[in-house]
Amino acid sequence: MEFESENQEKKNFFTLEMGKITRHVEKIAQEDPRRVIHSLKFGFTLTLVSLLYYLKPLYKTFNISAMWVIITVVVVFEFSVGATIGKGLNRGLATLVACALALGALHLASIPGKTVEPILIGIFIFIQAVASTFIRFLPKVKASYDYGMLIFILTFSLVSISGIRTNEIFKLAHMRLLTIFIGASTSMIVSILVCPVWAGEELHKLVAQNIEKLGNFLEAFADEFSNKSSSSAESQNDRSFISCLNSVLDSKNNEETLANFASWEPGHGHFMYRHPWKQYLKIGNLTRQCACRLETLRGYLNSKIEASEEINGIIQSKLSEMSSESGKALKQLARDIETMTRPFSPNPRIENLKIELKNLKSLLKSNANLLQAIPVAGVASLLIDIAICVENIEEAINQLAS
Amino acid sequence: MEFESENQEKKNFFTLEMGKITRHVEKIAQEDPRRVIHSLKFGFTLTLVSLLYYLKPLYKTFNISAMWVIITVVVVFEFSVGATIGKGLNRGLATLVACALALGALHLASIPGKTVEPILIGIFIFIQAVASTFIRFLPKVKASYDYGMLIFILTFSLVSISGIRTNEIFKLAHMRLLTIFIGASTSMIVSILVCPVWAGEELHKLVAQNIEKLGNFLEAFADEFSNKSSSSAESQNDRSFISCLNSVLDSKNNEETLANFASWEPGHGHFMYRHPWKQYLKIGNLTRQCACRLETLRGYLNSKIEASEEINGIIQSKLSEMSSESGKALKQLARDIETMTRPFSPNPRIENLKIELKNLKSLLKSNANLLQAIPVAGVASLLIDIAICVENIEEAINQLAS
Repeated sequence: MEFESENQEKKNFFTLEMGKITRHVEKIAQEDPRRVIHSLKFGFTLTLVSLLYYLKPLYKTFNISAMWVIITVVVVFEFSVGATIGKGLNRGLATLVACALALGALHLASIPGKTVEPILIGIFIFIQAVASTFIRFLPKVKASYDYGMLIFILTFSLVSISGIRTNEIFKLAHMRLLTIFIGASTSMIVSILVCPVWAGEELHKLVAQNIEKLGNFLEAFADEFSNKSSSSAESQNDRSFISCLNSVLDSKNNEETLANFASWEPGHGHFMYRHPWKQYLKIGNLTRQCACRLETLRGYLNSKIEASEEINGIIQSKLSEMSSESGKALKQLARDIETMTRPFSPNPRIENLKIELKNLKSLLKSNANLLQAIPVAGVASLLIDIAICVENIEEAINQLAS
Repeated sequence: MEFESENQEKKNFFTLEMGKITRHVEKIAQEDPRRVIHSLKFGFTLTLVSLLYYLKPLYKTFNISAMWVIITVVVVFEFSVGATIGKGLNRGLATLVACALALGALHLASIPGKTVEPILIGIFIFIQAVASTFIRFLPKVKASYDYGMLIFILTFSLVSISGIRTNEIFKLAHMRLLTIFIGASTSMIVSILVCPVWAGEELHKLVAQNIEKLGNFLEAFADEFSNKSSSSAESQNDRSFISCLNSVLDSKNNEETLANFASWEPGHGHFMYRHPWKQYLKIGNLTRQCACRLETLRGYLNSKIEASEEINGIIQSKLSEMSSESGKALKQLARDIETMTRPFSPNPRIENLKIELKNLKSLLKSNANLLQAIPVAGVASLLIDIAICVENIEEAINQLAS
């Protein structure tokens, strides 16, 4: 009996764990169904190139070199078209240059005679490895050609060192080039033709979404600021605010990667080749600057606002209006980007915002005390906020030391 | 004559360009001399493993498989110890598991008979590729085991597909495992023994430096706030402020990568194995929150502060004192981290800051108008700031559309 119940328990535990994993996998798939499509695309491409092993005449030509095709597909096939093209071109060109240079180096080494040859080859490999590794630290190379440099080091070393042991070095270099060409071009073609994921489009959407998030935040802030809701709903809102702002603040790296991939992509949809992707990075930076202000603004929701009735009455409602107007303007801008509307005529929302800004300033002028206090009070409240930040940092550091 | 002068021009151009490149390379090397050491280390390791080709008895054992050693060294050898160990272990373990599973799959496929075998192998490869590619999307796998999954797909496909064409499949799997073991362990040993670069130490320094940068900013702000300097010096300062704050705000990705690498590292220097690296990420997040406030504060330097004399006189000097006190506290915290002083006794700088905070609050209380105005004025000034941000974003979007 006991044994049975233990067995039952184990079974239950197993079903529970399996259920958890299934739900997790389902969530990942539902978040972005293109992940499933990408997996199928990759499986298809890999199976396609393994035909080189299946079909006898093909295998006779390539023999063991066929494995380079498999390796190339596994390494080059990426989620977005831009990443696949970037890696494919890097791999192809680096192999071409490295093969040519290695053959040249082998020829050079063979001139002084058979005894010195291996030593010269060793010296060439060392110098090449040191120089190429250092070049990988140059920021421009690191950003776009890091993978190419890696493949250059790899191919140069492989081809030149094989020169010590085999005389069929031309055939080896030729095979490596051919197989990498087949693998890379198959990956690129499947990536472009079957449900392509364009990095440029992703970047476009990401930038628009980030602006929209800030707009939503400002509108929600306007609501909370004018009529403080109950504390429990507040803290929940606060948490969703934090994660929303954080995702915008942390998007820089993602945007830069996407812009880099996008620069490899041919024209697609609304985007021409050489679309000004750098401008998206500029918009992204400005969006993050704005998000920083919102992050500071969020701090005021938690501080009890205890202004005098006079100030409270008119100004608070004006401020919440201003916040909601900014939010609407941002959301309009996000829509403008998404639909790629050319804002030839001035954006009406921005015009509204400018009027609102003027109104606020004139209202503040009528309340001379407040107007004079604004900059100093702003700095004061920020510095109080910063002091609290510093204490939080100290606490976290103390936890590290304990 | 003309021909000669043209030649001279070309020569000058060439010397000029070469000078530029040399200076650029020198700058990269001087910024971090360990880059040169790393390049030499890598060159040494690569030359070391190419002995497998040079020494006849070794080459007889490994034959063409020796190239896997070279490939492993090129791919696994990274700048920091943690990255090298992480990649080496990922590569080694993934190869082991993939070889075992592939041999199992080959055995399974051989049971129904020779005609069905290749078809079954193809199906196994497809299923494995789809499943593994999908698993790579799971956030936890992506963070630490992405490279391992890549090698798993690669090795499983290579070994099982080779089963169609060769009977020496055990030898192939065994060779691949052995060569990868040699390459990975050589890389790890050289990386640890010769001038090691520890990712954990880098993270430790980075977090401390970021806090110190904020401290410097606050001290400089205090100076500028109390006595406004000439506009040209101001704009220069402003630019260095911006780049300084931006480097802190953008450090999240770098910190996360370093923390991931550090988790692979054995104990070193002051750090034990399983040092709480996650706590550094927490400190880093708080530091960035603080940097967001400073970014907002920076906005006030440019706005003309025109408070009444009464407010100006006392409060402004108090505020600049407060700013400088916060800066000193932050710099003390940065030193505490750097020297790993355990702040058992309360940090005197933080105590100072708390007193300063109390003073400021009581000073504000004596000026009732200002105190009441603070939160509303803070929100008002931020919203004015945000409206300007929105206009800047609009301008950048318009540039994209034109």
